[in-house]
Amino acid sequence: MKVWAPYAKKVELICSEKKRLMQKDNDTGWWYLKNFSLKHGDDYAFFVDDRGPFPDPRSSWQPNGVHGFSRYVDHSLFEWKHDFWHTPPLGSSIIYECHIGTFTEEGTFDSAIKRLDHLLELGINYIEIMPVSEFPGNRGWGYDGVDIYAPHHSYGGPDGLKRFIDACHGKGISVILDVVYNHLGPDGNYLSQFGPYFTKKYSTPWGEAVNFDDGDSDEVRRFFIDNAIMWITDYRIDGLRLDAIHAIFDSSAMHFLEALSLEINNLQDHLARNIFIIAESDLNDPKIVRSREAGGYGLDAQWNDDFHHALHSILTGEKNSYFSDFGKISDLSKALSSGFVFDGQYSNFRKKRHGRQAKGLSGRNFIGFIQNHDQIGNRPGGERISHLLTLGQLKIAAAILMMSPFIPMLFQGEEWGATTPFKYFTNHQDPELGEAVSKGRLEEHSGFKPDIEISDPQEHKTFIDSKLNWCEKEKNIHNEIFSWYKDLILLRKSYPELTDSRFSEVFVKFNEISRWLIIKRSRIILLCNFTEKNQSILCNGEKIILLSSEKLLRFDNEKVELPRHSVVIFLLNS
Amino acid sequence: MKVWAPYAKKVELICSEKKRLMQKDNDTGWWYLKNFSLKHGDDYAFFVDDRGPFPDPRSSWQPNGVHGFSRYVDHSLFEWKHDFWHTPPLGSSIIYECHIGTFTEEGTFDSAIKRLDHLLELGINYIEIMPVSEFPGNRGWGYDGVDIYAPHHSYGGPDGLKRFIDACHGKGISVILDVVYNHLGPDGNYLSQFGPYFTKKYSTPWGEAVNFDDGDSDEVRRFFIDNAIMWITDYRIDGLRLDAIHAIFDSSAMHFLEALSLEINNLQDHLARNIFIIAESDLNDPKIVRSREAGGYGLDAQWNDDFHHALHSILTGEKNSYFSDFGKISDLSKALSSGFVFDGQYSNFRKKRHGRQAKGLSGRNFIGFIQNHDQIGNRPGGERISHLLTLGQLKIAAAILMMSPFIPMLFQGEEWGATTPFKYFTNHQDPELGEAVSKGRLEEHSGFKPDIEISDPQEHKTFIDSKLNWCEKEKNIHNEIFSWYKDLILLRKSYPELTDSRFSEVFVKFNEISRWLIIKRSRIILLCNFTEKNQSILCNGEKIILLSSEKLLRFDNEKVELPRHSVVIFLLNS
Repeated sequence: MKVWAPYAKKVELICSEKKRLMQKDNDTGWWYLKNFSLKHGDDYAFFVDDRGPFPDPRSSWQPNGVHGFSRYVDHSLFEWKHDFWHTPPLGSSIIYECHIGTFTEEGTFDSAIKRLDHLLELGINYIEIMPVSEFPGNRGWGYDGVDIYAPHHSYGGPDGLKRFIDACHGKGISVILDVVYNHLGPDGNYLSQFGPYFTKKYSTPWGEAVNFDDGDSDEVRRFFIDNAIMWITDYRIDGLRLDAIHAIFDSSAMHFLEALSLEINNLQDHLARNIFIIAESDLNDPKIVRSREAGGYGLDAQWNDDFHHALHSILTGEKNSYFSDFGKISDLSKALSSGFVFDGQYSNFRKKRHGRQAKGLSGRNFIGFIQNHDQIGNRPGGERISHLLTLGQLKIAAAILMMSPFIPMLFQGEEWGATTPFKYFTNHQDPELGEAVSKGRLEEHSGFKPDIEISDPQEHKTFIDSKLNWCEKEKNIHNEIFSWYKDLILLRKSYPELTDSRFSEVFVKFNEISRWLIIKRSRIILLCNFTEKNQSILCNGEKIILLSSEKLLRFDNEKVELPRHSVVIFLLNS
Repeated sequence: MKVWAPYAKKVELICSEKKRLMQKDNDTGWWYLKNFSLKHGDDYAFFVDDRGPFPDPRSSWQPNGVHGFSRYVDHSLFEWKHDFWHTPPLGSSIIYECHIGTFTEEGTFDSAIKRLDHLLELGINYIEIMPVSEFPGNRGWGYDGVDIYAPHHSYGGPDGLKRFIDACHGKGISVILDVVYNHLGPDGNYLSQFGPYFTKKYSTPWGEAVNFDDGDSDEVRRFFIDNAIMWITDYRIDGLRLDAIHAIFDSSAMHFLEALSLEINNLQDHLARNIFIIAESDLNDPKIVRSREAGGYGLDAQWNDDFHHALHSILTGEKNSYFSDFGKISDLSKALSSGFVFDGQYSNFRKKRHGRQAKGLSGRNFIGFIQNHDQIGNRPGGERISHLLTLGQLKIAAAILMMSPFIPMLFQGEEWGATTPFKYFTNHQDPELGEAVSKGRLEEHSGFKPDIEISDPQEHKTFIDSKLNWCEKEKNIHNEIFSWYKDLILLRKSYPELTDSRFSEVFVKFNEISRWLIIKRSRIILLCNFTEKNQSILCNGEKIILLSSEKLLRFDNEKVELPRHSVVIFLLNS
């Protein structure tokens, strides 16, 4: 048993009501307990300089929550059923973002397993689960996690997560885990009792910045890199999604993200498994996914918010907040054919020039989506895109996504146009913090859309409301949406030009006034009509309909007449 | 006349006791005054939302100090004498760091001109002047500047600086200006009255961090880049030395330093002049001087602290503060043959791994020195290296510097081993600030070396003590040191292998126990004996003595017998 506490004068382990004095290695700041080993299932905690008990910073399990004792887990004891599984290249993936607590009625890893056949039917081969590390209370999005090595007790703890991943692998589904390395939650965060995990040099919007480059940061960096390694080795995770990397501040000559990608790449070769790292980045900086050899950090892909914002604002007409920077079809065209919309221009929303050209990158360096947990959950009513659009518009959005050079990602329930919202919910045990979160939410959205009732994040109902209603998925319109997604995914898998992610091979044509758009990818061509009126679009060539959202009014070798809010995908026969 | 004040509701220009209301361009946040132009010599200031008067953030001259009115300067009126001058490549330069206030008795630009012939005699072709931008009071190092466009009134203001640069150019000396873009001084800093020049996102050890990446940062970046452009165009500066770039925090996709180097490189091509940018960097990050095409910032060179620390600690035996990381001859060998000593190893002083291999870089990307204003002035007594060493050791240090692959830089007076110290001095007008600086200095060094009296930075005497005493330079030992430097510089200029900056061509041999070192650069070979005893060093080949600090005891084709604390440079005849 060991724990890092470089400035501590005394560290004790408490287990079975017995305190044991630990010994310090003064060179490293690690404390050890010789002649004593924890056994699988033992509950323990630490006293640091007579303060405590505090859970282990690297606790594998917090069965009683963030303030409770840690429970020791011997990962070697788990009996895996599927020792051989296939992780396809990221470029061939269709990702499904999922929140364990609301994905099913029960909200556990085990209950999620029962829905994997649904994902298989849809054509999904990657599931991305929102953060599972122990966070305060019994419900939450997970971004306030504090015991980053411990799968949340309410989801089913370590064994639950392992059973889930094992089942996914058994079905041919790979698993990406969302991890938060830019900050830790405010409640139950005992890290500073042990060492300098945080720094005052930088600040993040959510709390203290992690110490990635100040004194004694080597061990802090290891704390996060070892965490990544643990998910990959002990839990067999196939990929990581790094939350908000723009809040990972590091002036070191070797940036934390580069060090992480280097270690994970080495691990991948050692394990002979594909392992991917995806970043959520607000920087529009190609460096994040550029190879290390070319001066980049070498991550595999990053979320493409610009694509989302461009498509969302065209379809909804929304102009508030960051959508104020978007609205033109040319923005969407630019995203599809070069990655970023903002690659150096002035952003009104940011009040500064933003981004940089994504030269040398390709579509497979970007995750594309028409919604995600943030885009839905940060709206005052937690509305999905399907709540804001006509059926025709929704089908356009999905078709553009699947025709894009990006790696498509859906958010749970999107595939049937779920009527349930995905709201922001928390379960802070600290009453002051809980009240602050509730108030903050109300203030954030006050005057936004006065007709929408703002839910209190702390209320249990807000969480319950956000759970998927699986009964509705068979019903008429939802079944139609599900078929549309299924067909689109099948189409994407059937034609190699759709997974050819070179921007040079994406041809986009549009008319900003008439509001139509054409995306051509070798033999496959998509035409869509954003307007509420039928319109005729010139499009040469002999065509075979592959998919059409509505019955076409007419088409021939020269033009196509599209109904209002409709989209068609042809195979060009030439 | 214009000024940027994006959030102001009202801006007035005051000139000749008359206030004039300015008009705002709401798109840009700039305020203009039409139908009125300032004339050369006009005194003016601004009122912002009825607060003021404040000097112009871009003031060209503050004849009455940081709190006074700005004086308008029409740069086109200055009559330059030397319109054509030659700026040699940085790699062939010998830089002389100089502080205008203490370089001469009078402490002005004009009096400095009188000493240029001395520099020519020495063999200097680059002079680097410590910051001259208007700082509080009448004396100071200059790093607390607040009117970054205005040469200090006590040095001679804009015309004085121009006369100085013009005279340098007339003598074939190029001028590098030290500029501080990481923070501004605390006193007389009115920038925040005008706009968001600072951010709370980051913090620096010296005050608020400059806003390089937050909202409205585009104009803040322009403020600094335009400043660089002004020195180059209006003052004909040949190069910039950027102070402490590790405190320039910027998460933008295009880092400020890259944007700066890009603009200056374009300007250089437009003006058809060599212009260089040198960074003071504490990061040991090769990215700073790596080409932009290879993912770097594209600056020309950076100060090499590791080389200094390695050499200093070998010679003095000092082990306090950052010297605790050094002391071995192998450190010096590594610096000479690869640039950084710390290129990824753990630093005890920093308590973290530090730096990164300087692959692809060469010696000309580094400025080498055996002392500089900081290394001297931050010591409790402001002691130069010559105060700490025997004459023999001093000669060893200078010889190693001139045999290094780096660009050598001397600090004023070093060339004759000046007996005058260079202390930390300030002249804060704000009594509280002055007292805080005095106290801080005392505390910083308390218990450091109790035998050394700590001077009060605010006392006038501390400044006066630091002035060079030019009378001493002709005296025996000083004259001997001067000749040594002159000979070394001449040697460096005479043999092309000494300015061949490829690390691959630097061969270093040493013995950590016997404490000798050999540096071989093609035909030129240096041998030195760090010990207090004579010793014999094996060194094959027919040799001709080029320079020797002492009469050699004996040498032949196999070995060289060196007196204590001595160094010899041979030409190998093979």
